[in-house]
Amino acid sequence: MGEKITVCEVGPRDGLQMAKSMMATATKQRWIAAIFEAGVREIEVGSFVPPRLIPQMADTGEIVEAACKIPGLTVVALAPNLRGAQAAYAAGAHKIEVPVSVSEGHSRSNTNRSTAEQVAEVGRMVAWLRAQDRHVPLEAACSTAFGCSLDGVIPPEKVVATAEGLVAAGADMIALADTVGYAHPAQIKDLVRLVRTAIGEKLKKLHLHDTMGLGLANALAGVEEGIREFDSALAGLGGCPFAPGASGNIVTEDLVFMLESMGFETGIDLPRLLAARAILKEGLPTEPMHGQVSRAGLPRTFRAAA
Amino acid sequence: MGEKITVCEVGPRDGLQMAKSMMATATKQRWIAAIFEAGVREIEVGSFVPPRLIPQMADTGEIVEAACKIPGLTVVALAPNLRGAQAAYAAGAHKIEVPVSVSEGHSRSNTNRSTAEQVAEVGRMVAWLRAQDRHVPLEAACSTAFGCSLDGVIPPEKVVATAEGLVAAGADMIALADTVGYAHPAQIKDLVRLVRTAIGEKLKKLHLHDTMGLGLANALAGVEEGIREFDSALAGLGGCPFAPGASGNIVTEDLVFMLESMGFETGIDLPRLLAARAILKEGLPTEPMHGQVSRAGLPRTFRAAA
Repeated sequence: MGEKITVCEVGPRDGLQMAKSMMATATKQRWIAAIFEAGVREIEVGSFVPPRLIPQMADTGEIVEAACKIPGLTVVALAPNLRGAQAAYAAGAHKIEVPVSVSEGHSRSNTNRSTAEQVAEVGRMVAWLRAQDRHVPLEAACSTAFGCSLDGVIPPEKVVATAEGLVAAGADMIALADTVGYAHPAQIKDLVRLVRTAIGEKLKKLHLHDTMGLGLANALAGVEEGIREFDSALAGLGGCPFAPGASGNIVTEDLVFMLESMGFETGIDLPRLLAARAILKEGLPTEPMHGQVSRAGLPRTFRAAA
Repeated sequence: MGEKITVCEVGPRDGLQMAKSMMATATKQRWIAAIFEAGVREIEVGSFVPPRLIPQMADTGEIVEAACKIPGLTVVALAPNLRGAQAAYAAGAHKIEVPVSVSEGHSRSNTNRSTAEQVAEVGRMVAWLRAQDRHVPLEAACSTAFGCSLDGVIPPEKVVATAEGLVAAGADMIALADTVGYAHPAQIKDLVRLVRTAIGEKLKKLHLHDTMGLGLANALAGVEEGIREFDSALAGLGGCPFAPGASGNIVTEDLVFMLESMGFETGIDLPRLLAARAILKEGLPTEPMHGQVSRAGLPRTFRAAA
């Protein structure tokens, strides 16, 4: 048995928010069920944001409620503020993801707050969540941690300061997000080390995009630095509506192929995962779908011993 | 100044041999000149194989002669046998690349010889080349070193034995080739270490394909093991006509972007390299062109200091 790595599917949230068309609620539910059936145990199913801003997410409450009926699935919902966290809690979400942009430009664009104001909002979310009956962990993602299409280079010290601020505000765990896909492997290693030196094992996850084609190389760099949780999206859907130039998330199928080939255990069955693309295609017929493993098919050497 | 890494452009050889249409000789020459102008100093410009097998390579003699007139360019030609090596020498090639398949199935399919027979052929090529006035180094590539679409898993011991046989036969340097793109990063590291233990610094280069989307992650693994030479093809062209399932080479533009971002010096100017795609498009208008950097454009953070 190899070491475990958790792959969190973010397609239903990060993927669909950029889609030009809308996926029907019933199709989303079937899609989420199919991803679970393939062995994915953590899915970010939607975000609690105003429907006038991201209409694709208008049914998130219903989606969270339905997903919570799948035994064994950790249902993650994105919430940019206290109001979103309250809605996520009410719907039954098991974990809340809050984006905190290290770039001031993207922070304003994404949440209409400065980075410091958003860190303070995380404090309010934590205080409210801790006062509830049910424990719902809050993960804060340091967005644009590796560069920003609006603000350019992001100083690593600002990422560290933001992560420290988020831990001080009570966030249960921290993710580093390459929101626009500008990271390179050496940068991943350097920043993971720096942030871990500052906040230790609270640093859990990398969220990577494949804008420049370095997505899996960056994931490898993260694995080598001990990261054991990754976000990715089926067929590489995704982007950020408030970060010009961003393109899709790393492709779940290709990431799982890499990790499983290297001997890590993701718990995910690749043929079933590849089959889940059909529902995505049916639900969003005009959306471009990415991925090399789906195109080439699994090689005969996959998991075969020498 | 960062450490130097040599990127050898193989598009005019590995890329064009798989193209469904033919690139005109004059266009090939302009394309090679444009790649050189972008800073590439080693180009595999063609292969000396029977035109009835690979008609796209029929003009290789003319292409080699023209390329040798570019001062500062190392002109590499592929030759599968002594006859090809003699033709490459006569045309003026500076370096000869000979493929030696570790997989018996691919070896038969690619060169109509067993692996051992092809190693013996390398010995004949070396003997002939050493008897000539001009020194032309011979690099032997261990093809299908990481797996084969015909024979499946390739035992690492057979790769090591083949590499040792090639060194004993007099090959000047050895490359490991993931001909069908089945490698994963841990395998790259393991095999590079094993082969280096056996033949030392004669192991020079990795030749990688992006069939499963792991191409750049595999390149990163190679870099981390100290490899400082890589083959790649502009726009990710390529494959092997005698290895079913193989797809394109790693994309030169994306590889250079990764290496330069990490602080390595390739000597290649990315905007000029990206501009060279136009000639490829003109010469092969219906061929699919790959690459993420060309699609996204260079990010504003590229080579910018924090």
